[in-house]
Amino acid sequence: MPLKQRLLTPGPTPVPEETLLELAKPVFFHRTAEFRQLLGEVLRDLQTIFCTKNQIIPLTSSGTGALEAALVNSVPAGKKVICLIAGRFGERWKNIAKAYGIEAVVVSVPYGQAVQPEQLQKALADHPDALAVCATLSETSTGIGHDIAAFGRLAAATPAILIVDAVSGLGALECRTDDWHIDICCTGSQKALMLPPGLAFLSVSAKAWQAIERHPAPPSFYFDLKKARKSLENNDTPYTPAHTLIRGLRVSLKKILAEGIENVWKRQAKYAQAARAGFQALGLELFPAQPNNALTVVKAPPGIDSTVVLTRLEQQYGLKLANGQDTLKGKIIRLAHMGYIDQFDILAAIAGVELVLHAMGHPVEVGKGVAAAQRVFATS
Amino acid sequence: MPLKQRLLTPGPTPVPEETLLELAKPVFFHRTAEFRQLLGEVLRDLQTIFCTKNQIIPLTSSGTGALEAALVNSVPAGKKVICLIAGRFGERWKNIAKAYGIEAVVVSVPYGQAVQPEQLQKALADHPDALAVCATLSETSTGIGHDIAAFGRLAAATPAILIVDAVSGLGALECRTDDWHIDICCTGSQKALMLPPGLAFLSVSAKAWQAIERHPAPPSFYFDLKKARKSLENNDTPYTPAHTLIRGLRVSLKKILAEGIENVWKRQAKYAQAARAGFQALGLELFPAQPNNALTVVKAPPGIDSTVVLTRLEQQYGLKLANGQDTLKGKIIRLAHMGYIDQFDILAAIAGVELVLHAMGHPVEVGKGVAAAQRVFATS
Repeated sequence: MPLKQRLLTPGPTPVPEETLLELAKPVFFHRTAEFRQLLGEVLRDLQTIFCTKNQIIPLTSSGTGALEAALVNSVPAGKKVICLIAGRFGERWKNIAKAYGIEAVVVSVPYGQAVQPEQLQKALADHPDALAVCATLSETSTGIGHDIAAFGRLAAATPAILIVDAVSGLGALECRTDDWHIDICCTGSQKALMLPPGLAFLSVSAKAWQAIERHPAPPSFYFDLKKARKSLENNDTPYTPAHTLIRGLRVSLKKILAEGIENVWKRQAKYAQAARAGFQALGLELFPAQPNNALTVVKAPPGIDSTVVLTRLEQQYGLKLANGQDTLKGKIIRLAHMGYIDQFDILAAIAGVELVLHAMGHPVEVGKGVAAAQRVFATS
Repeated sequence: MPLKQRLLTPGPTPVPEETLLELAKPVFFHRTAEFRQLLGEVLRDLQTIFCTKNQIIPLTSSGTGALEAALVNSVPAGKKVICLIAGRFGERWKNIAKAYGIEAVVVSVPYGQAVQPEQLQKALADHPDALAVCATLSETSTGIGHDIAAFGRLAAATPAILIVDAVSGLGALECRTDDWHIDICCTGSQKALMLPPGLAFLSVSAKAWQAIERHPAPPSFYFDLKKARKSLENNDTPYTPAHTLIRGLRVSLKKILAEGIENVWKRQAKYAQAARAGFQALGLELFPAQPNNALTVVKAPPGIDSTVVLTRLEQQYGLKLANGQDTLKGKIIRLAHMGYIDQFDILAAIAGVELVLHAMGHPVEVGKGVAAAQRVFATS
């Protein structure tokens, strides 16, 4: 039998069968009352998942398109933003700012660490002219999570808006857009929202709209948020959206809403707890100092190249986990457990790692990691 | 029986069943040798369809994203472009230029007319400092087609690059990117390429790359073409692409290649000839003075609101044709026949229009339009 495939990477993530079938339905015209009704429904459902009353804007792009839209619509060239950087995705904020001539004040920590609220507090005090703070909810490159609630309290006391890259994590991790004072919250379709890539979404607060309206001339056409807002008055988009993906998203969102977003967060917390316990029982060390619940990242054992482990997992067992990127390649293993994943998928991943390490001659007791994870699931 | 639906709008267009099923397959990881092989294959197939040896760059966006990428990567703010405008999509070139502080020299004609090569010749003579000419292959809003080959000969003799919006039309209409000196040719996935919306593509000539390299600092991050080119050295993309759509596109492109792109153009020409004959036999007048073969646009008969006709076609017969936009709403009927459409779909559309006009008391001889169209198909 060909190997059964299990996708356990931090994006794209598996998509529910019902959603996949929805994507196979005949294509339809999008300038209709039916589609406007559909788009309106999906955006309302997303508000529940974002925990916001703010307007949500859909974009046909990768998640990066939403990050770019957030920054360039609200911060003019020559102005200053504070970029909180704990990994590759935090770096993206700095790179977008640079591309648009926005001055980036960098607050960074070594990979594996999380930026602490005190660091932001100092940066805000040193740079009272900063127009925005750019943060990352789940830094997928290292597995750390940030205390966005604390960042939000700090930014809310200043004129700066808080922009959060929640591409990886929103829908899996606690993210209370309104309560946490997130002014622009960005996400993508291919992570916890259980859809293929191609759509991005962002929520915009009143404070952020004020910043956007103050911007004299945003260098933006395709990502013009004011134009998007105007179209949304009729549940429409300025340009042809990836409308079949929006139809599919409706199906995936209903699953999240049926469970309840807070229940999803709790389930994800349990998954993370189980995955950490499983790996640690095998003697593997967690990489992030402040891990988040969307994925579990562990260091490869000393003397073992994680690339070899990951290749074997894929080729022998159909288990697709992710490697580290850039300087972390070969050094870590990233197991994502957000989206359409259940507890047995996590057991499968840990079982696979046990088998591969054992076959490579690394001293692991086969079954020990799985048992440790299962014990977590056995507790209510 | 619920009505059988026929989508005959100029985008989105119907998608072949095999492609739809491909879109329902499980999601996979994209940073793999398999996906790089797939992306390379799709881009090579697109070169055949674009009739180019130039690099083709994929974008996860609407077609408008490709237009924006083309213009902002090659023309700095404060510099000049010539925009050839014959309708709503031509207007978009001017609007993108405006959003980025690029000076747009407008060469326009009334809706329903096509910009003539002499007009471009004069504009190029008057504006030798223009860095680009922006044109539209098929102006879908009116149904006209432009003589891109003539535009290309004129632009090629100057330092200006020729940028063509071929979103609606490429893959249905003759479009010889290299022979016609199109420096940047833009298209989208949801028209003649027979895929849902979500992907855009552009080809870039050596002359265009020189313009892009001369640009001191393109205001672009997500749409940065130099970065995209660098990633494509490994058949990769800078950000997560809509990879399931790319997998689906492979299936649709193979259909085009199996028929042969020149044969598709010929078939489309026949479709257009039949549609025109059919409508004219009913006494309907063509709207465009210089029609293209991707869609047929006719005026509503005097005293008849096309919105009423189109609503009846949809509600009574499941035939979804398109209305005019903005000032043309209620005045024209647009029947698209590009992509996954066959001759009987065209007969169905004409038969539906006959039935609706007849029921509305308009003097038409039922069957006359269909017979006229059929006679075109009966000739080889």
